[in-house]
Amino acid sequence: MTAHEFAPAKFQSFEEKSDPKNVAPRLKALRAEMEKEGLDGFLIPRADAHRGESVPPGEARLAYVTGFTGSAGLAIVGKTRAGLFVDSRYTLQAPAQTDTRKVSVQEVASGGLSAEIGAYVKTGGRIGYDPWLHTPGEIADLSEKLAGKAELVASGNLVDRIWHDRPGPPVTPIEFLGHNRAGRTSAQKVEELQQTLTGEGADATVLTLPESICWLFNMRGRDVPNTPFVLGFAIVPKRGLPTLYLAKGKITPELKKALDGVARIADAGTLPAALARLGGKAVHIDPATAPAAIAEALKSVGATLIEKRDPVLLPKARKNDAELAGMREAQRLDAVALAKFLAWFDDAAPKGGLTEIGIVTALEAFRREEESCVDASFDTIAGAGPNGAIVHYRVTTRTDRELKPGELMLIDSGAQYLSGTTDITRTLSTGKPTKEQKDRFTRVLKGMIAISMARFPRGTSGAQIDVLARQFLWQAGVTYNHGTGHGVGAYLGVHEGPTGISPRYNLPLEPGMVLSNEPGFYKAGEYGIRIENLIRVRESEVAEGYLEFETLTLTPIDARLVDVSLLTADERDWLNAYHARVWKEIGPLVKGKVKDWLKAATAAV
Amino acid sequence: MTAHEFAPAKFQSFEEKSDPKNVAPRLKALRAEMEKEGLDGFLIPRADAHRGESVPPGEARLAYVTGFTGSAGLAIVGKTRAGLFVDSRYTLQAPAQTDTRKVSVQEVASGGLSAEIGAYVKTGGRIGYDPWLHTPGEIADLSEKLAGKAELVASGNLVDRIWHDRPGPPVTPIEFLGHNRAGRTSAQKVEELQQTLTGEGADATVLTLPESICWLFNMRGRDVPNTPFVLGFAIVPKRGLPTLYLAKGKITPELKKALDGVARIADAGTLPAALARLGGKAVHIDPATAPAAIAEALKSVGATLIEKRDPVLLPKARKNDAELAGMREAQRLDAVALAKFLAWFDDAAPKGGLTEIGIVTALEAFRREEESCVDASFDTIAGAGPNGAIVHYRVTTRTDRELKPGELMLIDSGAQYLSGTTDITRTLSTGKPTKEQKDRFTRVLKGMIAISMARFPRGTSGAQIDVLARQFLWQAGVTYNHGTGHGVGAYLGVHEGPTGISPRYNLPLEPGMVLSNEPGFYKAGEYGIRIENLIRVRESEVAEGYLEFETLTLTPIDARLVDVSLLTADERDWLNAYHARVWKEIGPLVKGKVKDWLKAATAAV
Repeated sequence: MTAHEFAPAKFQSFEEKSDPKNVAPRLKALRAEMEKEGLDGFLIPRADAHRGESVPPGEARLAYVTGFTGSAGLAIVGKTRAGLFVDSRYTLQAPAQTDTRKVSVQEVASGGLSAEIGAYVKTGGRIGYDPWLHTPGEIADLSEKLAGKAELVASGNLVDRIWHDRPGPPVTPIEFLGHNRAGRTSAQKVEELQQTLTGEGADATVLTLPESICWLFNMRGRDVPNTPFVLGFAIVPKRGLPTLYLAKGKITPELKKALDGVARIADAGTLPAALARLGGKAVHIDPATAPAAIAEALKSVGATLIEKRDPVLLPKARKNDAELAGMREAQRLDAVALAKFLAWFDDAAPKGGLTEIGIVTALEAFRREEESCVDASFDTIAGAGPNGAIVHYRVTTRTDRELKPGELMLIDSGAQYLSGTTDITRTLSTGKPTKEQKDRFTRVLKGMIAISMARFPRGTSGAQIDVLARQFLWQAGVTYNHGTGHGVGAYLGVHEGPTGISPRYNLPLEPGMVLSNEPGFYKAGEYGIRIENLIRVRESEVAEGYLEFETLTLTPIDARLVDVSLLTADERDWLNAYHARVWKEIGPLVKGKVKDWLKAATAAV
Repeated sequence: MTAHEFAPAKFQSFEEKSDPKNVAPRLKALRAEMEKEGLDGFLIPRADAHRGESVPPGEARLAYVTGFTGSAGLAIVGKTRAGLFVDSRYTLQAPAQTDTRKVSVQEVASGGLSAEIGAYVKTGGRIGYDPWLHTPGEIADLSEKLAGKAELVASGNLVDRIWHDRPGPPVTPIEFLGHNRAGRTSAQKVEELQQTLTGEGADATVLTLPESICWLFNMRGRDVPNTPFVLGFAIVPKRGLPTLYLAKGKITPELKKALDGVARIADAGTLPAALARLGGKAVHIDPATAPAAIAEALKSVGATLIEKRDPVLLPKARKNDAELAGMREAQRLDAVALAKFLAWFDDAAPKGGLTEIGIVTALEAFRREEESCVDASFDTIAGAGPNGAIVHYRVTTRTDRELKPGELMLIDSGAQYLSGTTDITRTLSTGKPTKEQKDRFTRVLKGMIAISMARFPRGTSGAQIDVLARQFLWQAGVTYNHGTGHGVGAYLGVHEGPTGISPRYNLPLEPGMVLSNEPGFYKAGEYGIRIENLIRVRESEVAEGYLEFETLTLTPIDARLVDVSLLTADERDWLNAYHARVWKEIGPLVKGKVKDWLKAATAAV
């Protein structure tokens, strides 16, 4: 291998850029607005109305006021004190980004609110919130937590009033997927949805999740990082054309033409008027994802709410043959990039001098050699040595660490290809692993193989099979504190519902669903291990009425970390067959030293 | 072995005794009572107010009216037609016992009501029910099903009005468990319960389950078959003495003396007045098990209902050391009886001529050689050949079948010893099993071993580990349609909540809980396989914060049905260690040919 120079990363920023000096004046301005409204507090969530993991710049209100740029969190601004509630991922980053003399940072469970809310707002105080940024479920939860302490009051968004140079909504190119990529026309999907609505007695549904809207209309955009979303809303009546509500700037003659006969297009500003026209109707909305403002608007005109899961989520999760073909293609492209990266890494790491940021940059560069790779599907988690034990670690210039030869390196990353979405984790040896590291790696691998080989009757949920991945770690008295798998979209969100593999996913797994399979083990302060493949559910070829998984990811698993004596014959056969398949499918797509590396990395154990 | 003559069975009847001729006059009398009350229908459930699997003779209203003696079912008597809804266990027995010209038998899911209720009661009709025989949850479910069809009306029990020679409540001897058997005094248990009530803001709880009352007061009785219940109710206030409501005939000076300082005793007839005195209080009742009459009585006097699981169930499920010692002793006594029985069976079965009734009778006779065996814990399921595939099979003179040499024999049975309760299933070879039978038996065994060897973190539920028992069958594209395990009482009910091993048990498993471990496989019309041991949850000896199981049952598993080549080394080690333990613990307790048999049956594979 020769030394490499990599182009700077485009998909990921390593900055914790933030100017704590802005916090004090912005809090002051916000408090002046609170005063005008007679409010004792105001809630600033990280989320926008579309509940995505990423938000466009004009929706980054939490960062605007507090400086904190993490992907989840909630601030409460009281008259004299402000609190920023973040989960354990951000307990170091948040204080580094905000002005801690003005804002108290508190760790809470994800999305939660501290019980010490009384420290920010006087008893009986009125706390304002923007009902477009919270779901009815969230508001109900918060109200319960605040009972007897403070009152929640829906109000305008006070942050927007003080944010004079607030960016407008994103206007990015919209692409439409041809039939070879979408597999079904938008008209077919709308018809199926309308049958569902009729079946449940709904006159219409209001869609608020971009993933549902993009899937339904076979369109994709670039409105947020990592996920090819077009942000907008849609109202789908039980008969007739749906209407798509988009920011004015997006509405072009070309777009209208593309959606001709499929959907009407309207300015997002007219959505409230459209909701008002649903008075007296039965309207399906998802209380877990729709903004409270929509539920309230419908109730205020006498609509009957049918509160159920977004009706697009389940059909979308069942990938059709065209989507699966795209997903397979994306994993092949990713496997080529990973082979190049891992060949480089295996050469470079033992020599020392690699940093986490350098590793992320290299991986992105190898991926971008493929033209159809348009983005990362999330910020790469690259944990060297002890940083590998931080499950949701994201390297920044503050935390960047040099990988010392001999340490384990955990890399969890994914990309958006025009054909599909990828998500893969590999844990890599850079020297001589300890006996304990091999034992733990092998137990994680045995769990991953148990899911890979699972067969189960139709109707089985991800909750039921989760233990297959954990059993070998449990035998050693250890476990991992995250799910075994999440749903993955087809050139959409790398995390998608409504199924997955963990005790909280009780819906049946169905053919076509694509999931991650990613058990792990983390030893705080020492090392982290995770192995992740994407798998898809298919009908069993040998047992009628039974389902099984097909593995989609095609990248070698580091056999130097496997204690082969701990594998059963079936597990060993699985590993060797997997590597043989990787060699067969990816070998012809790489050459030279990468090919040599791949041949060695896929040798039978 | 010499030929055996066995005493007739006392614990189990093989009759389907019933006189269909009674059905018509009783329906006529009941309809006259309905007419008086202005009712168009009347519900007759199998259950009594205490929800037990067995009911005393005076509560067998369903049998009195319809002739059907099964352990679950619901009849609706309309003005001209009557329907009897039974689950799949009873689709043959029910028509054989009732007058099918007068009563239509319909198969429904357990405890359910047919959707065709309109066939029995006119639209808008009024259906009476006795609120002492239904829970609030049941009434809510039934009301929902009947919405728009008929109205449910709480009424007196019309069956009791026509049942002139109805037996009074059972009065049987009451025994009190000494500290060596109960492990905790009743006062200690009541104090813990009162702390729970205080913690949830309840002023009192009304207990209606005999298992809870018997456990709380360390007493046992003989009011119903199979389970040593004293039937009654109890009100436990958050402070001060509980009151036990019992049938008048049970209240003796001896009983008062035995409960002196622990509980007051009152005539069950005074319970309504006692409920009325709870007006304005917060009262904990279990909506899944308490009679609707109690909930209504409390609401009518302005009590606030705290509707939660019976607060005794969880403490009772966590067996203490004395209870566990008793359970171990009971399994040892049962293992001796089983060894004698299996030695006899292995000699007799290949010669032919055995019948299911003969086998049940023999097993009971061997159990009764032990004086402290006071009852069966349920009717033995003895399925010869194809009858083994009927999961809840109970042999009667109508169904009795001769076991043909070469067939599989499934025997699921249990006993009540003064020391504890047992439940064991073994599937036995009587000749040369087929390759398929050995494959299926071995997969069932692998599942049972996987549960036996499981280790899991505190907080894990039975739902989470269920798949460990099913995975090997699933690989072959087959499964079993029952739970993997249920809770077992300590000299109490052989089925007890609130935990178990199946997708419906979501509560964490806790140390001291005793469960069955009983995967199976059933091939309709050919054979059935089930292997069942009792296991108890204990803290892991090697992994802190982890739990594991200790197997309590000590009876050989038929190794002639095992395909050893399908076992992993760990599974084979488990089986050999289990058999070595059986030999070590039970070998010294048997002699002669039984000992010879046990030695051979526990030989390593």
